[in-house]
Amino acid sequence: MNLKIAVLPGDGIGPEVIAQAKKALYAIGEVYNHEFVFEEALMGAIAIDKTGNPLPEQTLNLCLNTDAVLFGAIGDPKYDNNPNAKVRPEQGLLKLRKELGLFANIRPIKPYKALVDASPLKREIIEGADFTIFRELTGGAYFGAKTLNEEGTHASDLCEYSEEEITRIAHLAFKSAQNRRKKLTMVDKANVLETSRLWRKVVQKVGESYPDVLLDFLFVDNAAMQIILNPKQFDVILTENLFGDILSDEASVITGSIGLLASASLGEKNALFEPIHGSYPQAKGKNIANPIASILSAAMLLEHFGLFTEANVIYKAIEKAIEYKVVTVDLKPDSKFGTNEVGEFVSNVI
Amino acid sequence: MNLKIAVLPGDGIGPEVIAQAKKALYAIGEVYNHEFVFEEALMGAIAIDKTGNPLPEQTLNLCLNTDAVLFGAIGDPKYDNNPNAKVRPEQGLLKLRKELGLFANIRPIKPYKALVDASPLKREIIEGADFTIFRELTGGAYFGAKTLNEEGTHASDLCEYSEEEITRIAHLAFKSAQNRRKKLTMVDKANVLETSRLWRKVVQKVGESYPDVLLDFLFVDNAAMQIILNPKQFDVILTENLFGDILSDEASVITGSIGLLASASLGEKNALFEPIHGSYPQAKGKNIANPIASILSAAMLLEHFGLFTEANVIYKAIEKAIEYKVVTVDLKPDSKFGTNEVGEFVSNVI
Ligand SMILES: CC(C)[C@H](C(=O)O)[C@@H](O)C(=O)O
Ligand SMILES: CC(C)[C@H](C(=O)O)[C@@H](O)C(=O)O
Repeated sequence: MNLKIAVLPGDGIGPEVIAQAKKALYAIGEVYNHEFVFEEALMGAIAIDKTGNPLPEQTLNLCLNTDAVLFGAIGDPKYDNNPNAKVRPEQGLLKLRKELGLFANIRPIKPYKALVDASPLKREIIEGADFTIFRELTGGAYFGAKTLNEEGTHASDLCEYSEEEITRIAHLAFKSAQNRRKKLTMVDKANVLETSRLWRKVVQKVGESYPDVLLDFLFVDNAAMQIILNPKQFDVILTENLFGDILSDEASVITGSIGLLASASLGEKNALFEPIHGSYPQAKGKNIANPIASILSAAMLLEHFGLFTEANVIYKAIEKAIEYKVVTVDLKPDSKFGTNEVGEFVSNVI
Repeated sequence: MNLKIAVLPGDGIGPEVIAQAKKALYAIGEVYNHEFVFEEALMGAIAIDKTGNPLPEQTLNLCLNTDAVLFGAIGDPKYDNNPNAKVRPEQGLLKLRKELGLFANIRPIKPYKALVDASPLKREIIEGADFTIFRELTGGAYFGAKTLNEEGTHASDLCEYSEEEITRIAHLAFKSAQNRRKKLTMVDKANVLETSRLWRKVVQKVGESYPDVLLDFLFVDNAAMQIILNPKQFDVILTENLFGDILSDEASVITGSIGLLASASLGEKNALFEPIHGSYPQAKGKNIANPIASILSAAMLLEHFGLFTEANVIYKAIEKAIEYKVVTVDLKPDSKFGTNEVGEFVSNVI
């Protein structure tokens, strides 16, 4: 297979972890005779520094015209604590999601056997947990109208959803549930929010086409508790943009490190793959960031193109790295291995 | 002291747990010579059933004219799964919060020594954790304009905040931090939401009057993770309404049971005390609900009126109940004690 892949390393540790994902893909390409052509482009704080724009036109065009996007991380503290900044790195990512129509963000949560003790949760709580979060990614308060009055004393964010936006991701989530343990949990705040009530209504309707999937509902406050109390109860979780952002970061604790989780963002035509962790600026350039999430996002990319054997080879290589404790300090405080060594190990095993 | 207390038992297990809180207050009144006069009123699904209104005029008037409100729980599944219901129990609680101006909801999180093993988190993670969440309670998406178009295919919720709304709760939170370990963590999503950026700006400004308090900021997705990874890092958490709803339910896992957490909701003139758990309809009438959160909310009421010794007596009585394992099944699956027995034990110890 020939794939043209746009690579956006982004900020902080992004470039370091993306380099390891590329290594893994090169190794796969050699063994399985695929040609992956990478083209790098700027996005995020680094793009602002160099061009003034967090998503330069050129980057967007590249992404629109490639088979897939591999993305590192975004964000820089110099923007976070400046509420008056006019341009922010995150705008680049949000615009890219919107322009590529990446409405479904898929985040699988499953602890590694060899790592159950790395979690702050007790072994018996997490052993056997295995669920996937479907987060809507191009709607809600992320993209609704924002206001700030002239005096800077009053602000607002509008959360909006349409039936169509809910329907398309609901179908994906139900289909995924059909291929798994046939349970879908819709998370919302329907006792308070109008948009949540629309979600509930539409998801109930879509659910009629999937009679073999058990559909239930949880309020988001309760869900935030249940994910920790009893993560095994979940199979597929479906939720809106902001709730999905919160719950998936929270759920990362089940695996012991957010450095282990990747996500796929899918649209009608485009697809983007990224670790769920952020840019972790304190670790930048230190060769200590965990590259596994980034390498996993490369594996999700392969799956997306039907290369299941190849993806599996990566999953196995990562399991081996974990088993042999070739991991970064987030997983083993006294580890001697850095970002680069873990990446080398994985691509050598491939 | 003479206190007139409005009692709103509400739905589900509300009446059962409230009865135990009243018992504790009666016992305190006898020992310390206070007169607590209780007046009951309807709110929630039960008020809809009896009057068509989740917050009848009479209830509101009573609450406006008492020293404090003791509240049980609200909610009924028959409304939750009906996205078309015109009247909902929760509207009663939200209206009451708004009419009484209860802008600050305060939720202390601290595990009981005797219960550290009841938590899904490992002992070393939670031992020593002790923080308080200040949740804004009368603003944000809970109270902003809601729309649903005529075809029922498009919905919106508006999240709004003003400088004034943020300032008043920020002062309370900073003052609390001054009396604690002098750290305040503001939780928001300032990399995406305009309201969050306003929060950040205003809280920074208010913070200048509290130079002895260390102020830091976390994005809500990261906060949802940090509360589980390392709850000991927190002292006072300050956040907006919906984030506070999610994070405080999540944080309840630290204590092992949501049946152990109470909250105070404060305004300029009024105050309301309630367990943070919901109406738990499956347990209604079974004498299995944990009354401790409700009894604790009575203790928070006493503290609010400066009766610290009395509140402490309740805290000690609850600790004793836990120590002697006179607890409900959520804390000890084979327990023979019910709601009523735990309540009796506590009031007898007083
Ligand atoms: C960086 C930020 C805008 C982003 C989000 O909130 O979506 C991140 O937290 C994520 O989850 O991908
Ligand atoms: C019942 C519901 C409206 C309420 C809320 O969301 O505020 C509850 O969850 C709470 O936290 O008190």
